[in-house]
Parts: sequence; C-alpha cells; structure tokens
Amino acid sequence: MPTTTATPEVLAALHNRATALRIESVRATSEAGSGHPSSCASAADIVATLFFSVMRYDPNNPKAPNSDRFVLSKGHAAPLLYAAWAEAGLFPKSDLLKLRTLSSDLEGHPTPRLSFVDMATGSLGQGLAVGVGLALNAKFLDKSDYRTYVLMGDGESVEGSVWEAVEVSRHYGLDNLCAIVDVNRLGQSDPTMLQHDMEAYRSRWAGFGWHALIVDGHDLSALLGAFDEAARTKGRPTVLLAKTYKGRGISAIENHSNWHGKPLAKGEETQKAIAELTQQLKPNGAMPQIQKPAGPTQATPTVGQLPPPPYKPGDSAATREAFGVALEALGGVNPAVVALDADVKNSTYTEKFAKKYQNRFFENFIAEQNMLGAAAGLAACGKIPFVATFAAFFTRAYDFIRMAAISQSNLKLVGTHVGVSIGEDGPSQMGLEDIAMMGAQPGVVVLYPSDATSTYRLVELAANHKGMVYVRAGRPKSPVLYGADERFHIGGSKVVRQNAGDVLTIVAAGVTLFEALNAHEQLKAAGIPVRVVDLYSIAPIDRATLMDCARATQGRILTVEDHYAHGGLGDAVLGAVGAEGIKVHKLAVRTIPHSGKPDELIDHYGIGARSIVDTAKQIIK
Amino acid sequence: MPTTTATPEVLAALHNRATALRIESVRATSEAGSGHPSSCASAADIVATLFFSVMRYDPNNPKAPNSDRFVLSKGHAAPLLYAAWAEAGLFPKSDLLKLRTLSSDLEGHPTPRLSFVDMATGSLGQGLAVGVGLALNAKFLDKSDYRTYVLMGDGESVEGSVWEAVEVSRHYGLDNLCAIVDVNRLGQSDPTMLQHDMEAYRSRWAGFGWHALIVDGHDLSALLGAFDEAARTKGRPTVLLAKTYKGRGISAIENHSNWHGKPLAKGEETQKAIAELTQQLKPNGAMPQIQKPAGPTQATPTVGQLPPPPYKPGDSAATREAFGVALEALGGVNPAVVALDADVKNSTYTEKFAKKYQNRFFENFIAEQNMLGAAAGLAACGKIPFVATFAAFFTRAYDFIRMAAISQSNLKLVGTHVGVSIGEDGPSQMGLEDIAMMGAQPGVVVLYPSDATSTYRLVELAANHKGMVYVRAGRPKSPVLYGADERFHIGGSKVVRQNAGDVLTIVAAGVTLFEALNAHEQLKAAGIPVRVVDLYSIAPIDRATLMDCARATQGRILTVEDHYAHGGLGDAVLGAVGAEGIKVHKLAVRTIPHSGKPDELIDHYGIGARSIVDTAKQIIK
Repeated sequence: MPTTTATPEVLAALHNRATALRIESVRATSEAGSGHPSSCASAADIVATLFFSVMRYDPNNPKAPNSDRFVLSKGHAAPLLYAAWAEAGLFPKSDLLKLRTLSSDLEGHPTPRLSFVDMATGSLGQGLAVGVGLALNAKFLDKSDYRTYVLMGDGESVEGSVWEAVEVSRHYGLDNLCAIVDVNRLGQSDPTMLQHDMEAYRSRWAGFGWHALIVDGHDLSALLGAFDEAARTKGRPTVLLAKTYKGRGISAIENHSNWHGKPLAKGEETQKAIAELTQQLKPNGAMPQIQKPAGPTQATPTVGQLPPPPYKPGDSAATREAFGVALEALGGVNPAVVALDADVKNSTYTEKFAKKYQNRFFENFIAEQNMLGAAAGLAACGKIPFVATFAAFFTRAYDFIRMAAISQSNLKLVGTHVGVSIGEDGPSQMGLEDIAMMGAQPGVVVLYPSDATSTYRLVELAANHKGMVYVRAGRPKSPVLYGADERFHIGGSKVVRQNAGDVLTIVAAGVTLFEALNAHEQLKAAGIPVRVVDLYSIAPIDRATLMDCARATQGRILTVEDHYAHGGLGDAVLGAVGAEGIKVHKLAVRTIPHSGKPDELIDHYGIGARSIVDTAKQIIK
Repeated sequence: MPTTTATPEVLAALHNRATALRIESVRATSEAGSGHPSSCASAADIVATLFFSVMRYDPNNPKAPNSDRFVLSKGHAAPLLYAAWAEAGLFPKSDLLKLRTLSSDLEGHPTPRLSFVDMATGSLGQGLAVGVGLALNAKFLDKSDYRTYVLMGDGESVEGSVWEAVEVSRHYGLDNLCAIVDVNRLGQSDPTMLQHDMEAYRSRWAGFGWHALIVDGHDLSALLGAFDEAARTKGRPTVLLAKTYKGRGISAIENHSNWHGKPLAKGEETQKAIAELTQQLKPNGAMPQIQKPAGPTQATPTVGQLPPPPYKPGDSAATREAFGVALEALGGVNPAVVALDADVKNSTYTEKFAKKYQNRFFENFIAEQNMLGAAAGLAACGKIPFVATFAAFFTRAYDFIRMAAISQSNLKLVGTHVGVSIGEDGPSQMGLEDIAMMGAQPGVVVLYPSDATSTYRLVELAANHKGMVYVRAGRPKSPVLYGADERFHIGGSKVVRQNAGDVLTIVAAGVTLFEALNAHEQLKAAGIPVRVVDLYSIAPIDRATLMDCARATQGRILTVEDHYAHGGLGDAVLGAVGAEGIKVHKLAVRTIPHSGKPDELIDHYGIGARSIVDTAKQIIK
C-alpha cells in the first residue's frame, strides 16, 4: 500500500471532505427530524481519511473483489456512511435527504439493502466480529491483500462481543484487520465508562495482544500516519484509539451531553450549524485519487454433485452425526463451503470437516457471538458458512442471529443437542427454545430432520438455498427411516403412516417422530388408526399436506415436540391451520426439565409414546 | 479476615480434603456413567482451599446472610461442588452417588433447586456476572463484608460476557469480588486458545485494571497466600490465574486430551484411579475450623402501599414512560426494588428511578449480558431487580435469560421500543421477537400493557410476583384507556368493546389495541359489530375470556400484534384455544421491516386499522 504523503494540499482536501460529510449529516438528520448528527461529526475526519486517502476501492462498485472493506459498527452514524459514499460518487447527494423514509434504503441504521453494506449494524458491538470474517476470508480463503477497517464507538466497546472478536482475531494473527475506536467520550445517557482515559483503552487492547495506537481523531496527518503504521504492522491486528469530540465542528453541540440521537432543529439551528461548518472549509487543495483495488478477481468455484447419503433403513445414527457426514461430503464438492464451531466440534461432528478441510474450518473457541459475526462476514464474501454449536448456546448469539436475519445473510446454522432427550447433562445444555428463536425471524428456513438420511439431504438443501437456514439436530442415535433415494424439499413433509380410516393426525419431528411411530403401533393394536407426519420443514411449512391430513382425520391434529410449548413445532402447525377450525392439541415440554436418562425424561415430560397414546384416546373420546 | 497460617498440619489437612473431593468426583461420575471428572480434578485444590480455609459460611445453612458466596461458573465441575458441600456436612456423602438421576437434585450442572446454588450455571461465561451482582449487593446495598468467589474455567474466559463482568466490576471497584481461573489448558475439543500462557492471561486481566495474580493452582500454600492478598487488595477486584492440570492426581488422564466430559469406566479403571488418589492421602493434620459468617443479619424491609396511577382516561403517555413513573413510585415504597440499565435510561425512563435512588441503580453501560447476570445475583440476595433496555437488545442476553428462567430467578425485565411502531430508527432497534423469546421460557410471566394506567398497575404486579416477569413497553405515546381504580391481574384480560351481536373477536395489545379500537368504529359504521379484547397478559393467558368471546362471536378470533408472526401474541392465543376448533386469524409483521414513520409502518406491515377492517370483512364473508 503506497503511503499518502500528507502535504498541506492533501490535508486541506481531506479536511474539506470531512467538513462536507458533517454538513451532509446535519442536513439529512435535520430533514428527517431524527438521527445522530453528533455521532457522525466525531468520526467524520476518520471516515474522510479512510474513504478519500487510505482505502482502495471502486466508488461505483462497492462489492468489487479485492476491495478494502469498511464496516460501520457504530451503525447510528449511518448518515456519515451514506454521505461518504455519495461524496465518493456512488449516488447523488440529493438522495441523502430521503434519509429514514420508507421510500429510501438510506435507513436509520445501515442494512445490506444497500450495495455498500455487508451486514446490518445498529445493534452495537457486532461490527468487529463481521470484520473478523472479512479478514479471515482475505487471509485464509481468497488469499487477497484487501484490508478490513471497522469503525466502532467507544460506548459499544463495553460489549463482550467486541472482546471475543479481539481475542479470535489476535489468535488468527489478522494483520489485515484494523479497528478504529471513535472515543468521543459521551454515551447515550451519560459519559462512557472510560470517558477520555485513552491509556485505559490502550492497556485493554494491548493487553489482548493488539497493536494499539492512541491518535488524535481530528488530526488528519496523525490519522494518515496511524493507518500507515497499521498497514505495516505484521502478525497482529491494529487498533486506532482515536480521541474525538462528539458533535465536532458544531459549537452548539460539540462535547455537550444530551445531544445523542438528536437532530438539530430544522430552520435556524440547522442553518447556523451548516454556516459554521461551511466557514471551516479551506481553499481546496489537490484531492488524492481514490485508490482502486488491485489483484485478480476470484474465479467462481465449480460445484460438484453430492454423493448419496451413506445410510439405509434399519441403520442407526444420530442426526448430529449425519450432519457431520454431510458437511464433510459438501466440503468435497463445494469449495465455498466453510465451517465454524465453538469448541464443541467433537460433539457437533464438524470435526469431520475440520480434519479434512483445515484451511476452511475456523475454531472460535467458546465465543459464539464472534462465531456468528465472523460467519456473516464470510457469507458477505460469497462463502457458505456452516455454523455449529449446541442449540442451547445459539441463545448466546441471538442478537447476531437477529441482525443476520435482517441482513438476509447466507448462513447455515446447525444446533445440536436439542431437547430433554440429551439426558443427564440437564437443562442448561438442552436446546428447548431454538425453534421459537429461529422461527420468529422472517425468512429463516427451519429444518428438523428425524433420521440420518433426511439430515444428509436437508444439509445439502441448506447449502444450496440462498438465505439463512437453521437445522435442528439431536444427540441420541435413532433408526434410519428413509432410503437413499428419498427426496426432500424445503417446505415439505412426509406422511409416514396413513390409512383410510385414520381418526387423528400426529405431527412430529426428531425424537418424537419415533415416539409417534411407537404410539401408532399401540393405538393400532387398540383399534385406533392414526396418521403420522414427519414435519421435517418447520418454516416454511407444508400447509397443504397438514390440511389434507387434518381433513382426512376428522379435523384433528396432535403435535408432539421435544421443545418448549410456546413458539415450537406445535405453534408452527397452529399458525398454518389455525384459521381453518382444525383442532390442534400440543404435547411439548412445559416445565424446566431436570437431569435424567433420555428415555426417562421423554416420558416424564409428557412427549413420549405413553403420553401420545393417552392424549390420542382423550381426543377421540 | 484472619489469615490462615499455612502450617504443615493445615496444608496436609487441606490436601486430604482436596484428594477426597477428587475421589468423590471420580466415584460419582463413574456411577452416573457421564460427567466431567477431569474438570473437577484440576480445581479440587482451589475448592478445598476455599471451602475449608478461606471462606466464612455456615455449612448447614448455605443461604445464611453475610456468608461468603461461591459461584461455580464452570458448572460442568458440579460433582466437585457437590462433594465440597457434602464434605462440609450439608448432606450425606452417599447422596453423591445419585448424581445426574431424575430422583436427585444433584444434576449434571448446578441449579438453584439446590440450597447452595444462587444461579444455574453450565452455560459458560455467566458466573462472573452473577458474582458482580452478589458483590454489588454487599458493597452498595447490604453494606455487608461478605466476599464473593467465582471459579471459572480457562475455556470459558473467551466468552465476551466474562469481559463485560470484568469491566463493570472494575468500574464499581468491587474489591469484595475474587475470580479464580482454573487454567487447566485443555478445552472440550482441543487445547484452549492460550493453553498455559499464564502471562497472556495476566496481561488481559491486568489490562482491564484488575489485580491479577498468577498462582500454582495445586500449591495449597500459594493459594492461601493469594486469597489472602486478594482480601487485602482494595479498590479493585482480584483474579487468581491458577495454573493447573486437567485430571490432576489421576495419572491415566492427567493433562491428557480427549478426557473432557468423560467418566472413568466403571470397574477397574475407576478403582485404579481411586486407589491412586487414596495413596496420595497424608497423615491427617489439624483441620482448620470452617469460619462462620459475622455481622448482623439483614432486617426484612417494610413494604408500603403504592400510590394510585397518576393518569386519567384521555391523558396521553407512552407505556415506557408509565413504566418509569411506576418504577420510581415502587422505589419509594419498597426498599428491595433496585434497577439496572445499559445506557438507555433516558429512553427506558429508568432515569427517574436512577435520579431519586442513586444507590439502588446500577448503570451497566452497553453490557446487556452482565446486566442480566448481575441482576440475577442481586435477586439471589433478596432484591427485586428491574432490568430495562430496548426489547431488541434483550436478544443479546438471551442465554442469561434462559439460565435465569432455569433458576426461576426473581427478575423483572422491561423491554421498551417494541415493534415497527418505533419508526425511523429501523429494524435493528425494533423488538419483534421478544414475546417468542420470553414466552418460550416456562414460568416467565409476559405482560403487554397498552396504556399508562395498566402499565403502572402491571409493573406493580410484576414487583409483587415471585418469579420472572417480562413487561413489553412501547415507544409512542398512546391514549389512557383506564381509570385509576381499574384492577388488573396476572393472567387477566379486558374486554374493552362488546355487544350482543358481535361477529368477531379482535385480540390485541399495545399499539395494535388502538388500531383495533379504530377498526371497531369503522366496522360498526359498516354494520359489522366486533368485540375487542385487551390481552395485557400473554403468559399466563386468560383462556376463559378468550373462549367466552370466541363462542359469543361465531368461533372467530382475529389477533393483531406489532411482533413477528411466529411465537407472538397470536400464537399465544392459538396455544390457548387451538384445541377447540376456534378459527384464529393472525395479523403480524411477516417480513423484515424498514425505516419509516410509525403510523406509516403500522399500516404498511399490515397491522393497522385498515388491515384489520379488510381482514375482518374477509373473515365474516
């Protein structure tokens, strides 16, 4: 990277760009009647330095390969980001005045509806983890020399997720990653924890092994030098701890409390601020050209055909293990597939992939939030990340999952060890709210295979689907139901038992499908014929089959699930057929469970064959 | 605190206790056929030192006031904890062999079903935050000299939540808090990130301003000295970074990989290990007496009568603001009420309480996970913590919420800024999955008031309810519906519009209730009489009223909610009446929303009066 010489002309030009970004941020937020101009003003010099001197990118093609990446982790400074891209020439500056309206994608916080945003931000503390994914991609996958810059707020650096990203990026030696903390001293409701104690910031970041530089965030020459030093630092990432002032350049608000998230009043207050900023403009110097990205573009990888599932009916395997087998096979046919785990790869079976494709596997240790953020970064680079941990521990990263759903990120999440059927480890390890959590997010596909063959095929479908997918996998071994030729599809289901005279439809998935099959036999012996549906796709859901079955069985459905009662499989069924007057009974886990043997717990919490038989008899009485 | 003199007799006695704990841990996990003996063995010397020399407590009354607290953050070492309490005399050692069975509360990971557990652990990285709550209580509320010890694993110290707790405890100068990291080098699937790089650990903790001591975790004399130094360190917390070996004392597994979460085989393997440990016993020396807690017990605070809500029908106020008013009033009548926020107190209105009761308000800056953990610690000390942030940001702490639900902790969570009705800030700030998230957890009460009066009363009910409560609060102002004398109860609802000939029941809460009332007028004008229910209690739910209304309106219900479609208010209604053949139609937010004006978004996403009127007409066609 060539160093920009900080001539007086260059500094004047950058200063004018920074001032223009401030003016646009004030103007747009005043027009919108809401927003965060003070948070834009503190970071304007940093952003101007990056966009108009340091970064190498194509202003007309933000997604160009090998471009330097910029993540605005402090998403509330969105108007600054928008102004920078407009100033770079991507779209007309007049668009900035549509900020925060339904008719413009220049929303209150950035989302990937915009071509220059890799991941939605605005929930704080997430950008650095996304940056880790972008930097891992450059260093280990694309072998590209693009650099990743993440602009953070000082307030958000209290978020634990930031420190996860700090640790993992240090572990992977991501010297192509540069964080900038805009230390503007003031949070939303009060001064920040450390205010302007720059040494306290330095000791934290340096303590974690980063190269940590304290810099005056309004001194363009110092910023240029620091970014240059960052680019020359090898073996570890660099952070610029930039001392700044909130509202910089606007005397009415600069360094004042109570100006977070507040626009200047339209009219005189705004005009006065813009006049003040305009006066700060200098005679224009020679603007350095924006540096274009270098290096070859990435070739599109060739994707091969997945071999058929290696199971036959009568075999026995855990769905989590079949996931591992499928993932390893996918690794062989699709070079875009990568995997991430959080120190449970010997339980989720991602270790099969990790052993064979070491360069495409990223161990996150016990840092689920960073794992999700990094995966979203990798997905933004065209990779297909499979992210696995115990289903229960995805709760740790729910905010990241939420933001990934907002971003419609191409993530494949696999949660293992679901339900009381894990047994002795007890409730802390049981995923019992994962369908509620994932199912609530619009656009997320939720799959819940029962046997190894369907797991294998659904993992393949997940990889090929464009968008977020969650696969729910169990701990215990279960019998293989389906032949290798059986076909599955997202939004499908299988009627696995049926007869003309069925009086009830039982809908299940995972371990409860086998309980339902057992109950089916017992009920048959008692002269009560029932239908059984394997609902392997919870979202989208096979409404047509459910309605057909319900109508064929006197309008009665019984759902059974190894999940809490609210927001699970039963509610998905109710959501699909609830407007039709179908009677849907739910069996689910309704209290906080206890340690015990898996079969014992399935029975004890009322989701086993015994409860299904008893309930079925009650229903048809 | 008197220093224990590390005489050879004392050291021999402690060594024997540590060895006994190892033996019991091996024996119990072998009997159970699962568990983590190697993780117990590494920490046995630390726990023996704490339980039998350092800590002041009553072995027969773990909840005695002023007792030192011990939190086992590495919950998978549960057998070690159980053995320590048995060894101290709380229950017979023979109980240890019931580990992990349905008939014993000695579960796979500790839960507060046990008298000596303040908060469930086993999801890693949570214990230190709980310790922060326990220590805040001693320092700022009870003014007690008890100390809090938190034993962590090295693997879990990668979790960001740990660093949130590190930051906040440093900010509050919690010199009564002592963390111990059991650095046994081996994670579940691989060596840990830092292995035995003790200096790297030291630089991280010291970088955050803690007093950080490296100690040999198997050297009892060194441990005694370090705990003594911790007790003498003022103004900041201390961490003991204890270098240990996983499986210590059992040569077959000591410092070996692949021995995480694996018991020794019953029979010869176990017997050999126990024999080896038994040989390590020394001639018994004089055991120091367990030190009893000192100081007076806390008096039960007197709780006064809450003044009536200061609103009258026709007023206008946001429910979030009414929450703030109620919380401030509660502060005046109940000294056990405390509040926590994460730098949004000027938006959640906890600042009213914070200003008046500074000593009972804890600012967590932007660290939602620590906020939840600390609140659970405070609840374990008999306080009634109200924890507030934007509903969307509770997703950041969902794992803590899950563990608090497992613990049946007495937390009151208040999530503001729900739904698309927040407007311009866009999807990252909109809580649209909070009912799914909170409702899934068994035992959590979910309240969703629509007006200021009901909010005030429901906040009062929340404070008086024993157990977890979630209150959903909105951003925009809404009209006051209810008079100050109106009564509400957990599990209740209000039929706010009804007539004999009603053809449909509309169920709503929050902003959509007002949309429903508007639609009611429009439909009335069109000759279509409909009933309107204010479902202010989502869980538990007023099934009786819903069924009465449904039966009175031709078996038809229409739900309307400012929440995603899965797992929300509509699904709660379906869960209540779905088995009865009632036809339930749901209006909810079904796509990722966009920035815009609140009213515009309510209409655009199909939850406004226009959609209600259209859908009602469709339904009754």
